[in-house]
Amino acid sequence: MSNQIIKEKILQAVEILNEKNIDMWITFVRETKVTKDPMIDMIVGEHSTWQSAFIINRDGETAAIVGSIEEENIVKTGLFQKVIGYVKSVKEPLLEYLNDKNPKSIAINYSKNSVLSDGLTYGMYLLLNDYLEGTEFKNRLVSAEEIISALRGRKSDSELSIMKEAITETLKIFDAVTKFIKPGLTEKDVAEYVKKIMKEKGFQPAWDEETCPAVFTGPNPASAHSGPTDRKIEKGHLVNMDFGIKYKGYCSDLQRTWYVLRDGETKAPAEVQKGFEVIRDAIQKVADAIKPGVTGVEMDDIARNYITDQGYPEYPHGLGHQVGREVHDGGAGLFPRWERYGNTPFMKLEERQVFTIEPRLPVEGFGVATIEEEVVITRDGCEFLSPPQKELILIK
Amino acid sequence: MSNQIIKEKILQAVEILNEKNIDMWITFVRETKVTKDPMIDMIVGEHSTWQSAFIINRDGETAAIVGSIEEENIVKTGLFQKVIGYVKSVKEPLLEYLNDKNPKSIAINYSKNSVLSDGLTYGMYLLLNDYLEGTEFKNRLVSAEEIISALRGRKSDSELSIMKEAITETLKIFDAVTKFIKPGLTEKDVAEYVKKIMKEKGFQPAWDEETCPAVFTGPNPASAHSGPTDRKIEKGHLVNMDFGIKYKGYCSDLQRTWYVLRDGETKAPAEVQKGFEVIRDAIQKVADAIKPGVTGVEMDDIARNYITDQGYPEYPHGLGHQVGREVHDGGAGLFPRWERYGNTPFMKLEERQVFTIEPRLPVEGFGVATIEEEVVITRDGCEFLSPPQKELILIK
Repeated sequence: MSNQIIKEKILQAVEILNEKNIDMWITFVRETKVTKDPMIDMIVGEHSTWQSAFIINRDGETAAIVGSIEEENIVKTGLFQKVIGYVKSVKEPLLEYLNDKNPKSIAINYSKNSVLSDGLTYGMYLLLNDYLEGTEFKNRLVSAEEIISALRGRKSDSELSIMKEAITETLKIFDAVTKFIKPGLTEKDVAEYVKKIMKEKGFQPAWDEETCPAVFTGPNPASAHSGPTDRKIEKGHLVNMDFGIKYKGYCSDLQRTWYVLRDGETKAPAEVQKGFEVIRDAIQKVADAIKPGVTGVEMDDIARNYITDQGYPEYPHGLGHQVGREVHDGGAGLFPRWERYGNTPFMKLEERQVFTIEPRLPVEGFGVATIEEEVVITRDGCEFLSPPQKELILIK
Repeated sequence: MSNQIIKEKILQAVEILNEKNIDMWITFVRETKVTKDPMIDMIVGEHSTWQSAFIINRDGETAAIVGSIEEENIVKTGLFQKVIGYVKSVKEPLLEYLNDKNPKSIAINYSKNSVLSDGLTYGMYLLLNDYLEGTEFKNRLVSAEEIISALRGRKSDSELSIMKEAITETLKIFDAVTKFIKPGLTEKDVAEYVKKIMKEKGFQPAWDEETCPAVFTGPNPASAHSGPTDRKIEKGHLVNMDFGIKYKGYCSDLQRTWYVLRDGETKAPAEVQKGFEVIRDAIQKVADAIKPGVTGVEMDDIARNYITDQGYPEYPHGLGHQVGREVHDGGAGLFPRWERYGNTPFMKLEERQVFTIEPRLPVEGFGVATIEEEVVITRDGCEFLSPPQKELILIK
């Protein structure tokens, strides 16, 4: 991850600390090549061997307390105003720094809800408490969850431009698939073709290679989270692909739907066209309503209700999720009020969060109509990160 | 990692639970693609998304409690006698299982000392405690550190055979370097040559690519943990390389020393030859003494004292470390009584542990003499995992 982005994220973190009224945030790690706190890539970008504390303060000061062998590496990043190297133990320099700053609240990376905010191991938590034993600071530790979900959610300018590049590269591969698809090819053939292009371009899949890309053709395809099968593409099939890449540390996640014309057809049958348009319009309705302050469940309701009102079954998953360094990133999601989603459907959406919008519906006898777009929340609405699919793509 | 090895490790874990008098060991994880407990690769080999408990019992029973979406994957591994899938929460099936087994002690993966035993995050620790609230089990949690260091240290037959293959492949690359080295090439040239071979063979470096391989030529080279420089190999230089690969999930870690003959020389000068022999003999003295029950500090003393008795300065690091899936693996090490090594120099060595032996000494005006071998502790001694370097390699 380039230092430019890390610098932007550290500045954002300072804003967030002020907004959340927290004085200090410590990311406390060791041997990050073995066990890595998910935040290290976002705010440090270097590995640590000995116990290291990466500190961001509400007053804007940044400090790193690291083993002497890594001091120079960290100085080189230019990210931390104070780089304090130690030989014996991190304890003394850490206490010295805390006494100097005297923070009233100290956020550390643990969370019951969010794995991305839960990078602190229990052993390291115990060590930190040993070091703070007998000081006031021990009672000032709080969870960094709200800092981290805000920081990961609110994309910086550089993050957004990289995510747009990732989407552009991804759509080029969808275009190649449009030219490649023909009756007789299997779902696996299409997936292999995509993997070949990825390999040529040196792209990593955004999620497991078994299901990235996921390719579905025809009626009653495998469930949304299965890998490609030997099922053959036939005339009269709806074909979809769910696919994304990891690009400069950021993920893309898109879906497109194709229809394979039958002999004599020049357009899709009416019911196929309608199914596609219901999905397309559901996405637009959400895009028209989404903005800072609304909740994800409200957005899910809009799409879910519109689709069921048109006489289709509801999609068996959430409407959309945040995307970032992880394909499922951040806290809030465009989720229904289902227990497994916890409180995430009810969190207010914020400017600069990037969400997928990905409803689906089955068209009896033809297959599944589905589109997945990515939008970024703007001050008063949202912006598609790429031109949305407005028309069914016809395969002759 | 092949299931065969995982099966061997699970059987070893059962023995160790009996030996350590612990009833149950739970590896409790979630979203292992984001934050991975270092033990997952060794005892599961699959990713988890929802909260999952992988359980090994002293009575030999193995169980996995996993999200329903992953149940089939885990069943397929054939590693767990009971695979319990859940939809709502891991809590109920976990409590049911605990009530059924009623373990008197439950080891979980946390440790202040060992990062490899510290895969449980603090948030997951809190969740586990929430689930156990009001039960006796909450007070029966203990650290799995002694289980994990024994399990990682004691290599199974399959692990040893893979580690030998890794070493064989590594030595082939050292042999290629012997043919490649010539005056005028820089340390970086040699490193690039090694990286080219690794790329062709699809090998990963055993540690950071900046310092793997590490190449040193001539007098007063960069410190042992620096990367290759533009310094040129010259006639009359001692040249060394510290290098290892990651092969089928396991690391190798070896060093060899070459001498570049000066015009008219047919062998190395006496002081170079002596320096090399002192290192070679120091390693053999340790190999003669090392066996189960001795401590690492005793082994370090043997090499360190022998080298200083010969009038050379002591090496500025430990004599050796364990190797496994991580290049620095296991608990005990062949370390001096320096504070930063904690209790690891004083742990008794065990059969099947694999250690490096890597002393070094400077030869004034020529460079560094150093060799690194890997040995496995046997019932009554040790065995070199590859033929040790007995002669200085001469470059004409």
